[in-house]
Amino acid sequence: MNLFDICQDKLNRIKAEDRYRVFADLEKQADKYPYYKHYRDGRVEQVLVWCSNDYLAMGGSDLLVNAVHEAVDQTGVGAGGTRNISGTSHYHVELEAELADWHRKEAALLFTSGYIANEASLSTLLSASPNMDVFSDQKNHASMIQGIRKGTARRHIFRHNDLEHLRELLEAADPESHKMVAFESVYSMDGDIGKIEEICDLAHEFNAITYLDEVHAVGMYGPRGAGIAERDGVLDKVDLIEGTLGKAVGVHGGYLAGPAHVLDYIRSVAPGFIFTTSLPPITAAAAAASIRHLKVSGQERAMQQRQAARLKQAFADAGLPVMPSESHIVPLLVGDPAKARDFSNRLLYDHNIYVTAINYPTVDKGTERLRFTPTPRHTDAMIEDLVDILVPMFNEAGIRKRA
Amino acid sequence: MNLFDICQDKLNRIKAEDRYRVFADLEKQADKYPYYKHYRDGRVEQVLVWCSNDYLAMGGSDLLVNAVHEAVDQTGVGAGGTRNISGTSHYHVELEAELADWHRKEAALLFTSGYIANEASLSTLLSASPNMDVFSDQKNHASMIQGIRKGTARRHIFRHNDLEHLRELLEAADPESHKMVAFESVYSMDGDIGKIEEICDLAHEFNAITYLDEVHAVGMYGPRGAGIAERDGVLDKVDLIEGTLGKAVGVHGGYLAGPAHVLDYIRSVAPGFIFTTSLPPITAAAAAASIRHLKVSGQERAMQQRQAARLKQAFADAGLPVMPSESHIVPLLVGDPAKARDFSNRLLYDHNIYVTAINYPTVDKGTERLRFTPTPRHTDAMIEDLVDILVPMFNEAGIRKRA
Ligand SMILES: Cc1ncc(COP(=O)(O)O)c(C=O)c1O
Ligand SMILES: Cc1ncc(COP(=O)(O)O)c(C=O)c1O
Repeated sequence: MNLFDICQDKLNRIKAEDRYRVFADLEKQADKYPYYKHYRDGRVEQVLVWCSNDYLAMGGSDLLVNAVHEAVDQTGVGAGGTRNISGTSHYHVELEAELADWHRKEAALLFTSGYIANEASLSTLLSASPNMDVFSDQKNHASMIQGIRKGTARRHIFRHNDLEHLRELLEAADPESHKMVAFESVYSMDGDIGKIEEICDLAHEFNAITYLDEVHAVGMYGPRGAGIAERDGVLDKVDLIEGTLGKAVGVHGGYLAGPAHVLDYIRSVAPGFIFTTSLPPITAAAAAASIRHLKVSGQERAMQQRQAARLKQAFADAGLPVMPSESHIVPLLVGDPAKARDFSNRLLYDHNIYVTAINYPTVDKGTERLRFTPTPRHTDAMIEDLVDILVPMFNEAGIRKRA
Repeated sequence: MNLFDICQDKLNRIKAEDRYRVFADLEKQADKYPYYKHYRDGRVEQVLVWCSNDYLAMGGSDLLVNAVHEAVDQTGVGAGGTRNISGTSHYHVELEAELADWHRKEAALLFTSGYIANEASLSTLLSASPNMDVFSDQKNHASMIQGIRKGTARRHIFRHNDLEHLRELLEAADPESHKMVAFESVYSMDGDIGKIEEICDLAHEFNAITYLDEVHAVGMYGPRGAGIAERDGVLDKVDLIEGTLGKAVGVHGGYLAGPAHVLDYIRSVAPGFIFTTSLPPITAAAAAASIRHLKVSGQERAMQQRQAARLKQAFADAGLPVMPSESHIVPLLVGDPAKARDFSNRLLYDHNIYVTAINYPTVDKGTERLRFTPTPRHTDAMIEDLVDILVPMFNEAGIRKRA
């Protein structure tokens, strides 16, 4: 039995545990979003997608499509190099300035994804000193966990959003150590929101720096769309803000915003930043166009918030088990991986509605769910149709709203 | 002193060691490649770039530019989701089929970069069994090293391309363990080539699987451009082939090709694959167009090889310290970081020629160099001009060709 047989074994176990994932073969249609094409068994059907993280429908907007048309004529497709070896384009430089301004920070640094932004930044910073402690929210995203694990700092996990527990851990740590507190604003699977101000104040009391993942909030909250820290007026309390260009911004890539010399240090040493081809300049051009727009236009945000509120209300009114989200994320608890997948499949095959089942390892076992992300283009009529289809499915399966 | 002060300290040390990098602010011009715009101090100048990894000038080709125009009108910009959550598009599915066919493998799996392809694949495979050994070429790329370090397998580094040493290490390892040998085809900084057939035969003698990074070779070698393993007729001996879409292909992203169930396993468990927004569909569309072309057109490869041979010959004839590359990569040894940077700066500021100084950590200290990558668009006249400029610079600095 060689390594490859082991892979087969492990795969069989995943299938036996109902954790095997089949990716729907979709195609976004710029002018019909949120309707996608769905390719299956040689046929193509139109499906209504309810689980895209292109939250504001920017990805297919004329603004972004035109930004790509223009940039690709100018500069072609790929960057053709790492940032150091001819792969820094003026589009990257301008986008980094746009991002720094967005978050009111000295500087910003681009990465090829939000995943790599977290992984590279956290692992680099958390290896900078031999005497370090990191305090990480229990619900932090996999990319943060990877970065934290790779660092050499001592790891402390605080109970989700629990200030008392965080204080206990901070108090118990070496007073002389270098410290960081790492957490998120919008937690993407539950939709609840980190207590940014309280956590930052507490961290700073212990001379810890604060690292906030705003991946699901950038573009979505605050007068200029810079995220929850902006909405709450506490941008200056957050030392480092990590974000993505792949969700509300509608493009691809990730970044970190913060003090110039800190980013300069990461830029100078992080393998995940240095040893990789930089983002295509057309990607940077589209992201900059999107952010420039989102800084001055609140329309997409307002419409998205309206539809998210409606969907939550409609689910609640219909007695569906909507989870108590504080944000634009609308999860329905199913609590069983096979059922969640079965619901997702029936919606897709019988009703041409697509929403992925969210199973382990993305969420804890026993909390499997359907996660809906309405956009400004999801109409009231679509919401009504959805509820009409879901209610009998959940009733039949005996899943009711919890008291 | 908090964590941020430490970053400042470390940065100062990097500067003191002459390792601080300043990224040139460039802009590729699709229709004038390899001439770029160079932004500096509020001015914009035209510079001739000699260090792009867009080796075949595909990035700015009409073929790719048009592929992007077409795809972006259809599908917009970002994917809007992870592969599992609405982010698998038909463009991704088609590109994966194209890649599997390219390398004559059962399947291929896309990642957001070649860096992540290596990091995620190696770390996943090298944690699959409790009793594993990995044998890694000493010159392997940082992204492979990161993946190997993250895995739980015992690590053995064999001297670069040294079959005797590899055999010794294989013989000394537990005969019952699961084994992998990981190496590259074209080593990008020296330009020498891994002994693919011999290494694979040796590995298989010990029931080890073989993992080959062809990042600098895909598009460049072999009748269909699939790389050195194709050129040498040994595709079937390599179990897993890793590649990038960001260099000769002219776009962005990375992949692994190999047995379907192995990729299915990685797809199912690797955090670096699962927890990240998938590549933009327009990126996948452009890459597929490029590969389809490179499978049937040998013209770009032939012209690139011709210019690379000319440049090497011209350097050698002029007595410049060209390193003994077996590939399209043409490095000139400088051997000192400050000098290498000074040469690069003078070329840029006095002659409007751009070639990055390659310093530590990209290459070992003492082997600092200028690394030239001619493309089909680098003319004989450009080569002559370059030599005329370099010869007095190297003479003046007392750097001569080694005997
Ligand atoms: C909280 C969080 N952080 C980071 C990421 C990674 O961002 P990206 O998709 O740009 O890699 C994601 C999801 O993809 C996320 O949900
Ligand atoms: C040998 C090698 N492998 C992998 C990579 C990473 O590929 P990518 O640029 O697509 O991240 C690089 C360079 O960037 C490389 O030189």
